[in-house]
Amino acid sequence: MSVTRIEHDTMGNVEVPSEAYWGAQTQRSKMNFKIGGETLPLPLIHAMALVKKVAAKTNASLSRIKPEQAELIIQAADDVLAGKFDQQFPLVVWQTGSGTQSNMNMNEVIANRANEIAGTGLAAYQPIHPNDHVNHAQSTNDSFPTAIHVAAAIEINRLLIPAVTTLRNTLAQKAEQFKDIVKIGRTHLQDATPLTLGQEFSGYVSQLDHSLVRIQDALKGLYELPLGGTAVGTGLNSHPDYAVKAAENLASLSGLPFVTAPNKFEALAGRDACVFASGALRTLAVSLNKIANDIRWLSSGPRCGLGEITIPENEPGSSIMPGKVNPTQCEAMTMVYCQVMGNDTTIGVAGASGNFELNVYMPVIAYNLLQSIRLLGDACNSFNDNCAVGIEPVKEKIDYFLHHSLMLVTALNRHIGYENAAKIAKTAYKNNQSLKETAIALNLLTAEQFDNLVKPEEMVSPK
Amino acid sequence: MSVTRIEHDTMGNVEVPSEAYWGAQTQRSKMNFKIGGETLPLPLIHAMALVKKVAAKTNASLSRIKPEQAELIIQAADDVLAGKFDQQFPLVVWQTGSGTQSNMNMNEVIANRANEIAGTGLAAYQPIHPNDHVNHAQSTNDSFPTAIHVAAAIEINRLLIPAVTTLRNTLAQKAEQFKDIVKIGRTHLQDATPLTLGQEFSGYVSQLDHSLVRIQDALKGLYELPLGGTAVGTGLNSHPDYAVKAAENLASLSGLPFVTAPNKFEALAGRDACVFASGALRTLAVSLNKIANDIRWLSSGPRCGLGEITIPENEPGSSIMPGKVNPTQCEAMTMVYCQVMGNDTTIGVAGASGNFELNVYMPVIAYNLLQSIRLLGDACNSFNDNCAVGIEPVKEKIDYFLHHSLMLVTALNRHIGYENAAKIAKTAYKNNQSLKETAIALNLLTAEQFDNLVKPEEMVSPK
Amino acid sequence: MSVTRIEHDTMGNVEVPSEAYWGAQTQRSKMNFKIGGETLPLPLIHAMALVKKVAAKTNASLSRIKPEQAELIIQAADDVLAGKFDQQFPLVVWQTGSGTQSNMNMNEVIANRANEIAGTGLAAYQPIHPNDHVNHAQSTNDSFPTAIHVAAAIEINRLLIPAVTTLRNTLAQKAEQFKDIVKIGRTHLQDATPLTLGQEFSGYVSQLDHSLVRIQDALKGLYELPLGGTAVGTGLNSHPDYAVKAAENLASLSGLPFVTAPNKFEALAGRDACVFASGALRTLAVSLNKIANDIRWLSSGPRCGLGEITIPENEPGSSIMPGKVNPTQCEAMTMVYCQVMGNDTTIGVAGASGNFELNVYMPVIAYNLLQSIRLLGDACNSFNDNCAVGIEPVKEKIDYFLHHSLMLVTALNRHIGYENAAKIAKTAYKNNQSLKETAIALNLLTAEQFDNLVKPEEMVSPK
Amino acid sequence: MSVTRIEHDTMGNVEVPSEAYWGAQTQRSKMNFKIGGETLPLPLIHAMALVKKVAAKTNASLSRIKPEQAELIIQAADDVLAGKFDQQFPLVVWQTGSGTQSNMNMNEVIANRANEIAGTGLAAYQPIHPNDHVNHAQSTNDSFPTAIHVAAAIEINRLLIPAVTTLRNTLAQKAEQFKDIVKIGRTHLQDATPLTLGQEFSGYVSQLDHSLVRIQDALKGLYELPLGGTAVGTGLNSHPDYAVKAAENLASLSGLPFVTAPNKFEALAGRDACVFASGALRTLAVSLNKIANDIRWLSSGPRCGLGEITIPENEPGSSIMPGKVNPTQCEAMTMVYCQVMGNDTTIGVAGASGNFELNVYMPVIAYNLLQSIRLLGDACNSFNDNCAVGIEPVKEKIDYFLHHSLMLVTALNRHIGYENAAKIAKTAYKNNQSLKETAIALNLLTAEQFDNLVKPEEMVSPK
Repeated sequence: MSVTRIEHDTMGNVEVPSEAYWGAQTQRSKMNFKIGGETLPLPLIHAMALVKKVAAKTNASLSRIKPEQAELIIQAADDVLAGKFDQQFPLVVWQTGSGTQSNMNMNEVIANRANEIAGTGLAAYQPIHPNDHVNHAQSTNDSFPTAIHVAAAIEINRLLIPAVTTLRNTLAQKAEQFKDIVKIGRTHLQDATPLTLGQEFSGYVSQLDHSLVRIQDALKGLYELPLGGTAVGTGLNSHPDYAVKAAENLASLSGLPFVTAPNKFEALAGRDACVFASGALRTLAVSLNKIANDIRWLSSGPRCGLGEITIPENEPGSSIMPGKVNPTQCEAMTMVYCQVMGNDTTIGVAGASGNFELNVYMPVIAYNLLQSIRLLGDACNSFNDNCAVGIEPVKEKIDYFLHHSLMLVTALNRHIGYENAAKIAKTAYKNNQSLKETAIALNLLTAEQFDNLVKPEEMVSPK
Repeated sequence: MSVTRIEHDTMGNVEVPSEAYWGAQTQRSKMNFKIGGETLPLPLIHAMALVKKVAAKTNASLSRIKPEQAELIIQAADDVLAGKFDQQFPLVVWQTGSGTQSNMNMNEVIANRANEIAGTGLAAYQPIHPNDHVNHAQSTNDSFPTAIHVAAAIEINRLLIPAVTTLRNTLAQKAEQFKDIVKIGRTHLQDATPLTLGQEFSGYVSQLDHSLVRIQDALKGLYELPLGGTAVGTGLNSHPDYAVKAAENLASLSGLPFVTAPNKFEALAGRDACVFASGALRTLAVSLNKIANDIRWLSSGPRCGLGEITIPENEPGSSIMPGKVNPTQCEAMTMVYCQVMGNDTTIGVAGASGNFELNVYMPVIAYNLLQSIRLLGDACNSFNDNCAVGIEPVKEKIDYFLHHSLMLVTALNRHIGYENAAKIAKTAYKNNQSLKETAIALNLLTAEQFDNLVKPEEMVSPK
Repeated sequence: MSVTRIEHDTMGNVEVPSEAYWGAQTQRSKMNFKIGGETLPLPLIHAMALVKKVAAKTNASLSRIKPEQAELIIQAADDVLAGKFDQQFPLVVWQTGSGTQSNMNMNEVIANRANEIAGTGLAAYQPIHPNDHVNHAQSTNDSFPTAIHVAAAIEINRLLIPAVTTLRNTLAQKAEQFKDIVKIGRTHLQDATPLTLGQEFSGYVSQLDHSLVRIQDALKGLYELPLGGTAVGTGLNSHPDYAVKAAENLASLSGLPFVTAPNKFEALAGRDACVFASGALRTLAVSLNKIANDIRWLSSGPRCGLGEITIPENEPGSSIMPGKVNPTQCEAMTMVYCQVMGNDTTIGVAGASGNFELNVYMPVIAYNLLQSIRLLGDACNSFNDNCAVGIEPVKEKIDYFLHHSLMLVTALNRHIGYENAAKIAKTAYKNNQSLKETAIALNLLTAEQFDNLVKPEEMVSPK
Repeated sequence: MSVTRIEHDTMGNVEVPSEAYWGAQTQRSKMNFKIGGETLPLPLIHAMALVKKVAAKTNASLSRIKPEQAELIIQAADDVLAGKFDQQFPLVVWQTGSGTQSNMNMNEVIANRANEIAGTGLAAYQPIHPNDHVNHAQSTNDSFPTAIHVAAAIEINRLLIPAVTTLRNTLAQKAEQFKDIVKIGRTHLQDATPLTLGQEFSGYVSQLDHSLVRIQDALKGLYELPLGGTAVGTGLNSHPDYAVKAAENLASLSGLPFVTAPNKFEALAGRDACVFASGALRTLAVSLNKIANDIRWLSSGPRCGLGEITIPENEPGSSIMPGKVNPTQCEAMTMVYCQVMGNDTTIGVAGASGNFELNVYMPVIAYNLLQSIRLLGDACNSFNDNCAVGIEPVKEKIDYFLHHSLMLVTALNRHIGYENAAKIAKTAYKNNQSLKETAIALNLLTAEQFDNLVKPEEMVSPK
């Protein structure tokens, strides 16, 4: 039998589990939204606590709440930030689109914890009141989207950028290691002119380098904070210096360059910075999909595929085919790509659907944005550690393909013209002969001329 | 300190927690895929257990495994189905795209549980071996997608269809209740000719009725099972009668009309039935978005919106604006729509990406498909219980709008022509007068004629 | 110098090109919406003319317009249907979301043409008036979506279904032709157990067969017509029998089983049937993407790829690499897949965005839906004629792969167990030996036993 | 009867219309790809001509072709750029994914035009040969994606940025004009605390300002050119200085800061810059959707909606409802949003699908990217000219709502606490009274206190 206490809010009484730090409004949402099981992601919960801490600090410095009230709120928020109350945030994503009850959940937990520290205990709501003190100078409408920006910016900096960088560095090392391995190129899946395996990998490095720049571009918008807009962007009930100072405090506490959003009406009503950030994440996913796809194709086989590289064998690949090994890290990565693509659609549709002074699709935006960041970061780390670091070339296979390719004929364009070169390639293919044999047979080149002109290792750069 | 045991598989030894029912392959995947936190949804886990039960039963009936082996497997599978081992499936969605290690996870848990029952205990792997007995006549490649179809079909029948039907019935009841309330219509958000509030709601009912038909269309493909295709669709290592009989057994155990897929090569390599089902779910989400949007607009206000209906007040709406009440169930629903839209993109991209004999995007497809089903089902129930049942008309507001609308002028088209009617409407608008005053002033109609022709309650049907 | 005439509508005067059959409202839209260049697709224009013809016929039969008026309208509509006035519909997709001006464009062209026939000439607007006669008992709100359904249903039946069927039949013929060619299977891009090339192609056939069923499911909704709902679904200004009879007339003229939509409020406010149809088209695109992808991979090479099949050489493949031939039909098909995926997103978002009595995203829905139908139909025909019909196996390559694959070891599972079989495969791979050599060396089987058990041609079906 | 000439290429003879400037390869593609009707957009055709001009100039300066050859090519390219040959590019988007035949189409037209100038005439192919001279030091694989980048960058700078800026400036002017009009705010579609109409519009301005920054971020990637990578990124057959000099020449001719891509392997194999740019366009579309939606809601009515602003009346709104006027520019804009969302999906999927040395989804990427740019640019201009400039406030409606709103109660939070304030609001709502009456009746404030505290015009900023 679970024991409950009675709490009340402006709508009346509610039974809340006795041991819960949350209060009436959280409980109402818990009862009214039995949808799915996805609770708000922890990075968002922690960012909300950080916002509350910053608000208390700022309000106290502006004499809007008392220093001792601020102190209690800060202590309680620090407890939440330390992960001690992670179980106290039971609300799902599929609630009100403003996240109001999740904001109240945080207000209630911090108030109750603060009052517990103060000695008045759970449900006392004094000396700290959830709305009047913890939520002071805030509305859900500014503090919740602020927390979304903060959570996304922190996770991108903490997890994603290091993970992408690690993978980028591994691939750069491979590019260096493979820089002298000349191999056949492939365009349209068809044999093309040669390049080095290192060059091929350098393309992947460049894609990730560009993505890192794009992520920085996306961060700019996330660093602009709605806090101080309060209910509709006007800043009603906040001190005139509050918005700027709160952003400064957030920057100082987080070590990230947060600033107050230049226009609070946009900052509440649009989530465009999230939409744009999702576009940057999507572009990263697109790059990673290309890389993972290439790597699984290059390692396909072992005997009936391209087989130009090997990747680590991490698990038995089949429950029925003994000895099978599969490119599982590539598969996880390409599935993450699919998810990020879908998340991007969700965020785009949700971001476009604000009305007047507020976008009420915030929980779903936060959920998808943070999932994309998490999955991309984790997948880069997993792919790096369990696949990329162990990639090795299969030189005999690479050599075999290189020397049998008909596209070496391209080196002859400038000497005998495109049409004659094509004639050699087509005849060689038809007769299943080598280019050299064919060139001689067609009286287009001598053996010596051919050998002088067709040198794969000299075809990998301009001349 | 956690205690471990040593297990081995075809790749060597692995340390597994002593108390775990899973074995080496599960453990490998757990270590190699630290990506996100989303484990496979429980309905899929349970469907996998059901497939194992069916396979054992069928293999025994075809004398491919011994009756006592089948009996042990079935008992163990029943334990999984009863929810006793839900904690034993720790693998995340972001693993190999075939779900091989999740299939092995199930094989291992069932084998270990079966052997526990048989008295040989965990890690004995006899009398029941995960591959040779639990996985007998199966490959992950056929049993995993079978479980996806089974899980989706079960959840659609168990949760989604009843939830949609419940909401449909509530709305139908409202349509009946509101059938005589004549109100202004709105097209382009602009005032239009009248209809009844009941007619407006009847449109919602019809949308859901159509969705129920579409869901049945989608189920047809999900009822076709890949089981019996084994590794590449040929049925290698299975009895010739296995595929048909296994599907029959699944149908009989589940009460749903499962059949063996007519072509196993498609059944393994394509997940088109999931893609199409997602399209049906997406269409339902589109309908629900329209309904929820209309309802929040119609209830907008309380004083500065349309305010033609009221919806239940379930939670305080704002942490800063006292007394505010918001259409939160509508917001949850429209966020679910956004999520289902994104899930649909994910499923489409994943479904299109199979190669040769297998689609290796199965976990991400299953995760998104089952999330869409769950969210739509739960959201319909939540919306029904916490919003739809409590919708009431605000008759004075409805009447006020109806009688001030200029679009009643449309009733005059057949009598004075479109152009004269337009003249009345435009003049009335410009002069801020009523239609009747204007019609008379323009000498187009007498007062009596006007009253005879413009009767809103007679404008809601053909004549 | 272009000569103009003055026309007027309810908003005043407009200059219209003298020779134009359109009138004031078309001209206004032309001036006000200089966006993009995409005019409404011709199948939609022709469907609109068909709807006008049907409306005139039905209204006359119900004595709502005079027989001679109907006759003139029908004659004019027939001229439009014959393609004589295709240049008279200059409006772009990016106009009002109801298509009102395009509906008026049709009303004006038909009225002007009718009056031309009647001898009163352009801009006379008598005996036939665009609103009072051509548009009689219609609103754009019912007649335009009716035309969308009609256009989509006609194009699906005229172009898409025959094209899919043709490709399906070609692939079925290939499946039959290749039914005895045993080849290596591939899962995860890695070598797997064998199947026949015919079986591989049979999977494609089955995908298309399923798509044909799904398209029929989708047609059901498109066959339901909004016509008769007039402005807001009530049927105001139409005869009580009009909706049913008009649908019957449309069915009779088109040869397709159109019926009146059971609920006109949904029929105007939701475009769910289009959303669902797009989902079916998207599923077809997914299938075609898989097929085209497989075929280009199987034909990759000519010397450094899989090369198990050849496809027709249709164009020189490269402007720089002489003799290169590329799978260009596959590429066109996979680009069409990408387009259809995007169109599906557009249609989903647009379809979800109706408000109250009308969805005002109709032109964009029509444009995307008809583009998807056209592209899929044309691409199937092009792919069929220029690629599929010419696919031939490369038997020596197929044989080579088959006999070198390690996954033939799967045939041993039931005889020596999964783990021993795995040992053979792994050892053979490590030592670069054959399975047979290895099985003997490991003392697991004799040469004779191996030969008896491992017969690729017996591995392609259950036993 | 159409007269033809015989041309040949490396695959044999082809009949080409006598008067055509294109040659054999264009003709082959025309015959082989009868898919849809969407030809490559003109901005891309012109960008291709510009690339050819730059290549000729650069190759001549590096002594790789003769000055007189370059001169002829440049003259011919200038003719194409002047629009004289727009009819000579008949190929559709749905062709080879590299755009090879479109590149050859350009090579052929320029060669034929050059030879016409030189006096040898069509089909002479000397002194200028399509491959050896016009395509010198190029592959389609680098020149085609270069043209995509160039076309997109030019169109963004020429059309999109000015159009967005124009609209931004109009909205900024409105924000200034409306800066003292206090009105009710709305969150969740429900009445909220007040703000000024100018503040509301300032949010739109800020959204567009941010979008302009994001577009600049996106341009950075588009300014990096693949040219010089030739077939697979190695620059085979090009001069070592070619890539850098060609980019310089392109920058100089276009006035845009093009540079050579730092890594040509990425530059050919990935189209990430297009994917990211599409994300920026999508974010702009999201902003515009919010703005257009707000404006049509604020202008809803005229009598049964919110009606706080009026927008210009541009066309009769209904073919059946006389006098109806609709927010058609808003509808065009929101349809453009839907299209851009879908285009973004298409581009994302296409961009992710490159293999090895080339992405073969270039025509579909170019088509969608350029369509998004065009539609957004045109729609901004159309919306600006036909809607935004004419927006006017309806002051009496705005005032009425403002003074009846219950959310003015929020001003009391800091004086009587959130809970008491809520009590006033709820009681006033229930009793259909004013806040002031209720506050007095509840003995919470005197009339004087109320009047001192609740001043809407003082609620629109922090205090």
